[in-house]
Amino acid sequence: MTGPEIDRLIHFLAKLPGLGPRSARRAALHLLKRREGLLTPLAEALTAAGAAIGTCAVCGNLDTTDPCAICADPKRDPATICVVEEVADLWAVERSGAFKGHYHVLGGVLSALDGVGPEDLNIARLVRRAGAPEMKEVILATNATVEGQTTGHYISDRLADTKVQVTRLAHGVPVGGELDYLDDGTLTAALRARRSI
Amino acid sequence: MTGPEIDRLIHFLAKLPGLGPRSARRAALHLLKRREGLLTPLAEALTAAGAAIGTCAVCGNLDTTDPCAICADPKRDPATICVVEEVADLWAVERSGAFKGHYHVLGGVLSALDGVGPEDLNIARLVRRAGAPEMKEVILATNATVEGQTTGHYISDRLADTKVQVTRLAHGVPVGGELDYLDDGTLTAALRARRSI
Repeated sequence: MTGPEIDRLIHFLAKLPGLGPRSARRAALHLLKRREGLLTPLAEALTAAGAAIGTCAVCGNLDTTDPCAICADPKRDPATICVVEEVADLWAVERSGAFKGHYHVLGGVLSALDGVGPEDLNIARLVRRAGAPEMKEVILATNATVEGQTTGHYISDRLADTKVQVTRLAHGVPVGGELDYLDDGTLTAALRARRSI
Repeated sequence: MTGPEIDRLIHFLAKLPGLGPRSARRAALHLLKRREGLLTPLAEALTAAGAAIGTCAVCGNLDTTDPCAICADPKRDPATICVVEEVADLWAVERSGAFKGHYHVLGGVLSALDGVGPEDLNIARLVRRAGAPEMKEVILATNATVEGQTTGHYISDRLADTKVQVTRLAHGVPVGGELDYLDDGTLTAALRARRSI
């Protein structure tokens, strides 16, 4: 419409998750209307983040340091590893504040459909980490989807030879959840895992 | 979570229309995972668009040239001006391919609630343009919202002293629209504006 620069901007904005071609157009106009306040700072933030942030060679987390702040934190328990699919899941567990061990980011899930095999995920290094003598527990925190659970089962098989204890997150009624709106699978899981009070 | 660079990136991504804090986090991770393919090109596209694209001094359109390609196009009719709220609306009219005149972008609508008065919009220049001797018609294509229609009425009052003809877009049943799903206002407008076939 108005030259290649704006088409190019819309093209790349449309590749962000949550933005389609239509909202990318709106976002591009929004940015061009707010040049000083948004467009330039966003361009700078992108360049700065791209330059400063790398992948932690130990756990696969994204951080400005390698190893990342979590792996390097002496107050965290290195004998417990929480295995997550993506960095976003690591952030979610961190936000809960309920975990003070180390992480391992797989970078995805096993998926025959998408052609993702064990060698495409960060699994070999997890097996090496779990084999360290001081390691006590590996918590599988993959998503409660078919692929996430399959990946969890595969990892627990791979860790069978180590002396580490393998656990997984509990399934059950989400806090604040109403039974009427829950799917049968969750209700069945919550009933089976019932606890005395 | 992982240093100020990523927080800053999320902060600015969250200001894009269509992205909230949650989807901005997801977008930031998406970008950091696709550094070569998306993060760097997007940063470059932002900088290039910011540097190359400016506001047309005649009509308020965004373009790499001033006056913009539409204002400078000798094949378009300079005696007809289509008045729109935003550049996005100009693009929408252009996509229809049904208009071959010039435009005037107001940069918003009158809104007592948001404290937007006539002096905040690109109205004075429109009155000047409409006063030119060769000008024939001003088409009010503001949105069919209360603010859009109020703004249209205000502009048509301001243009009363000029000899230009002021028109507005027709209201009616959208092409492909089903009567059952239409609001009463649209149906009433479509009935009142019925035409013999």
